[in-house]
Amino acid sequence: MESTVDLQGDFHVYDTTLRDGAQQEGLTLSVADKLTIARHLDGLGVGYIEGGWPGANPKDTEFFRRAVHELDLRHARLAAFGATRRPGVRAADDPLVGALRDSGAGVVTLVAKSHDRHVELALRTTLEENLAMVRDTVSHLRAEGQEVFLDAEHFFDGYRDNRDYALEVLRTAYEAGASVAALCDTNGGMLPGWVADVVHDVVETTGVRVGIHCHNDTGCAVANTLAAVDAGATHVQGTINGYGERTGNADLVSVVANLELKLDRQVLPQGLLREATRTAHAVAEVTNVPPAGRQPYVGTSAFAHKAGLHASAIKVDPNLYQHLDPVGVGNDMRLLVSDMAGRASIELKGRELGFDLSGDKELLTRITDRVKELESRGHTFEAADASFELLLLEEVEGGRPAYFEVESWRVITETRPGDEAISEATVKLRSEGVRYVVTGEGNGPVNALDQALREAIGQAYPEVAKFELIDYKVRILDQGHGTDAITRVLIETSDGESTWVTVGVGHNVIEASWGALVDGVTFGLRRQHVT
Amino acid sequence: MESTVDLQGDFHVYDTTLRDGAQQEGLTLSVADKLTIARHLDGLGVGYIEGGWPGANPKDTEFFRRAVHELDLRHARLAAFGATRRPGVRAADDPLVGALRDSGAGVVTLVAKSHDRHVELALRTTLEENLAMVRDTVSHLRAEGQEVFLDAEHFFDGYRDNRDYALEVLRTAYEAGASVAALCDTNGGMLPGWVADVVHDVVETTGVRVGIHCHNDTGCAVANTLAAVDAGATHVQGTINGYGERTGNADLVSVVANLELKLDRQVLPQGLLREATRTAHAVAEVTNVPPAGRQPYVGTSAFAHKAGLHASAIKVDPNLYQHLDPVGVGNDMRLLVSDMAGRASIELKGRELGFDLSGDKELLTRITDRVKELESRGHTFEAADASFELLLLEEVEGGRPAYFEVESWRVITETRPGDEAISEATVKLRSEGVRYVVTGEGNGPVNALDQALREAIGQAYPEVAKFELIDYKVRILDQGHGTDAITRVLIETSDGESTWVTVGVGHNVIEASWGALVDGVTFGLRRQHVT
Repeated sequence: MESTVDLQGDFHVYDTTLRDGAQQEGLTLSVADKLTIARHLDGLGVGYIEGGWPGANPKDTEFFRRAVHELDLRHARLAAFGATRRPGVRAADDPLVGALRDSGAGVVTLVAKSHDRHVELALRTTLEENLAMVRDTVSHLRAEGQEVFLDAEHFFDGYRDNRDYALEVLRTAYEAGASVAALCDTNGGMLPGWVADVVHDVVETTGVRVGIHCHNDTGCAVANTLAAVDAGATHVQGTINGYGERTGNADLVSVVANLELKLDRQVLPQGLLREATRTAHAVAEVTNVPPAGRQPYVGTSAFAHKAGLHASAIKVDPNLYQHLDPVGVGNDMRLLVSDMAGRASIELKGRELGFDLSGDKELLTRITDRVKELESRGHTFEAADASFELLLLEEVEGGRPAYFEVESWRVITETRPGDEAISEATVKLRSEGVRYVVTGEGNGPVNALDQALREAIGQAYPEVAKFELIDYKVRILDQGHGTDAITRVLIETSDGESTWVTVGVGHNVIEASWGALVDGVTFGLRRQHVT
Repeated sequence: MESTVDLQGDFHVYDTTLRDGAQQEGLTLSVADKLTIARHLDGLGVGYIEGGWPGANPKDTEFFRRAVHELDLRHARLAAFGATRRPGVRAADDPLVGALRDSGAGVVTLVAKSHDRHVELALRTTLEENLAMVRDTVSHLRAEGQEVFLDAEHFFDGYRDNRDYALEVLRTAYEAGASVAALCDTNGGMLPGWVADVVHDVVETTGVRVGIHCHNDTGCAVANTLAAVDAGATHVQGTINGYGERTGNADLVSVVANLELKLDRQVLPQGLLREATRTAHAVAEVTNVPPAGRQPYVGTSAFAHKAGLHASAIKVDPNLYQHLDPVGVGNDMRLLVSDMAGRASIELKGRELGFDLSGDKELLTRITDRVKELESRGHTFEAADASFELLLLEEVEGGRPAYFEVESWRVITETRPGDEAISEATVKLRSEGVRYVVTGEGNGPVNALDQALREAIGQAYPEVAKFELIDYKVRILDQGHGTDAITRVLIETSDGESTWVTVGVGHNVIEASWGALVDGVTFGLRRQHVT
């Protein structure tokens, strides 16, 4: 699939999930999380990925250090976010500016105050010095060979209070070499008509290249972004799943889908918008924020229809009852009663894993039915490729590899005052004809079970010694239903070279974890034995 | 509080939570639920409450039977929803029309096809007969003394395919006596500019009074509704919390808040918009759909700020950092305590919780240092207000309330082939001078510990019986470090009236959960005992 659009050209799709999205209440991303999300964003084909603020905190510094070496971006350029120099120092001498310069990012997005009252009350400096801060910092970074975008903070409020000054900030940045001035509705209070008027005026008056950065405080972030584009903005900022502070940022997928599918403006590489649903859900698994079923375009309910009344008319012409074909965003039409994925997506997924299912309609139907049934009980195969591959194996080859057969397990966790808790697990299983009863200890019940399981299997399969549980995520489904809730566990296992993710489900978190552990070890063993 | 606006006059706020909102996937309302929600809607001051489709199902018929007697509406009028007569019968003879006529509702909202292809493919009748169905049904109900609104289904798609026919449907209804023609974007695919153009044309061409009914499939339901009002619509339909099929309907609270607070157009009785947050949350309690924290205006995060950088400026002028005063919608500004927090934000947060820390610089420094230290070890107070309040108590009052003292605990989880796993916890503690040893069972280890803990404390504090663990989140920090990883658990507890969130941290997930459980029960008891 080749890019037919220049992602760093006439129109920019600029993602700030890793920086502004991470401001969302309750959302915390590790460096590894950020690297994973960056890969998903690149797979969607965005033009820019804002990775964070190097120098402002050790995590973001570390992210850029690793990103430069570890990310092999096909589509996107990496942008570092940071502020203009502090008042009264040279840009070259400001250590925070230095961190941006040395981040390894080809683009720096500089946030600058454009609202006069913020300059005075928050920065506590003069309007003139603020302009100098913009000018010096942009010039310095340009001279060091970086592309510079300006984020004009509180621009719309500033424009209302002091239009001349707000415009002067943009002009100053532009003349110093910034290539885009993104107008930020930082407090999120704008409506589409107002955004259109301001953007129009900025484009007409200053001639700068305008970008737009919206928040959803009026419920209009997507519409405000589109209004800005209609008025001349050629750079849109947003986040996956609309993550962000307060009510969130503009949902980048909705913005892009509206541009491509409604307004016939191609802004991602040809065909990549079809990755939108997969990307949105995969990112949600990393952030551990439950995806919103009602989310436009990518929500599980977005193309769901209560069958009853409409069913026959839907069969005649589904487009009578949907605003567009969900295939365009990688989603599926669903008639409620059934659940989730269609056969087409299972076939695609199978192909991705090396199974050609296209020739056997019956097999495909059987797998699809089983996936639907399991997902209705809380499984998710979107983020758990390894469990899905084991399921395919069961159906295609008539069973999963039988490296071991579990008889029972038990795990005890206890504590005494002043001591850390300790967990002890006993696993009974048969492997290669021998029965093992093994007890393992660990920092937690899952760790103890993992130790015992791998020690028991390790007699026959010593290679499991190098398997390591490197991530563990728990989500309660059916929130609000207390003790009847279903627990879903995702476990990531590593063999030192690659990693894989498995899923387990159950009323009991330990049982769900056990299911994911067993899948994880089975998958790892199969990989060793097949390749 | 007196209405200063005529809610059934020049502008209508029309709520369809009980009908179109109830189409949402997974949302089921009993008759009692619907009556409760109707009271909340009336308390918010909407002009019309669409209660359902009497005659189409027994529940809705029953709702109208009871609503007429039991609801004592101060502001709203009750509307019954239903379809035009079937093809080829007299309106007076159609039992479904009869059910509308006999519903006791003063208003009937008649849904009619306005898209020619739907008339042919879904209704399977002629375009002429469809017009007759509209004309006859409206005339009949008007003659029986009811006010009639028209819901022109699929209007925008119909307008695009056959403008003349779509307009003819509206004219026909209007001439037969309908007082509003609501244009429905039934498939939800419109963008604001398109809506504005169509509404403008309809108003100019037909002279009918136009209403607007939007869905959120492009993420623009609120903006589309506002665009329609700007183009001349004087009747807005929507639902509380944006409930509805697929991506939902226009969020009525966002629409109204934007009209009143942004566009200076008063559409609810004076002062009642301040009930918006309370209403949205109360309705969510009835529907049992967890409220979205990021929901504009009424979400718990809608006016939440990560303090750090901004805190000192927020103290100077909070309006620098919020698009309007949250009091207007009955919401509150919240400061999130995070590891970026400085003393200024801790001081503000303390004030929010009723602690004046401004006078004691040393105390403030001690608390700030402790928050930073705990957060560096994996705690997060941003999402766990209750744990933060307990920490404040320890520092301000020299300790937390000592309702009980834990000696030790142990939890066992085990399984056998074919059986679901079972967990059993034993807790030993002293409370009010008595030692308790209690064993609890549960679906999982945390559930079992919670049972045992509350049973033990319940001897001295029977009020803990009504505490319920309603959400549980687990996060592994330091991903990649395997068994050294830190586990963070967030637990949300409810006492049936309010909820609070506590945090626990440890190498062992069960130990972390225990910490959060103990905090949750302690906080709940303190709240009972202090207030």
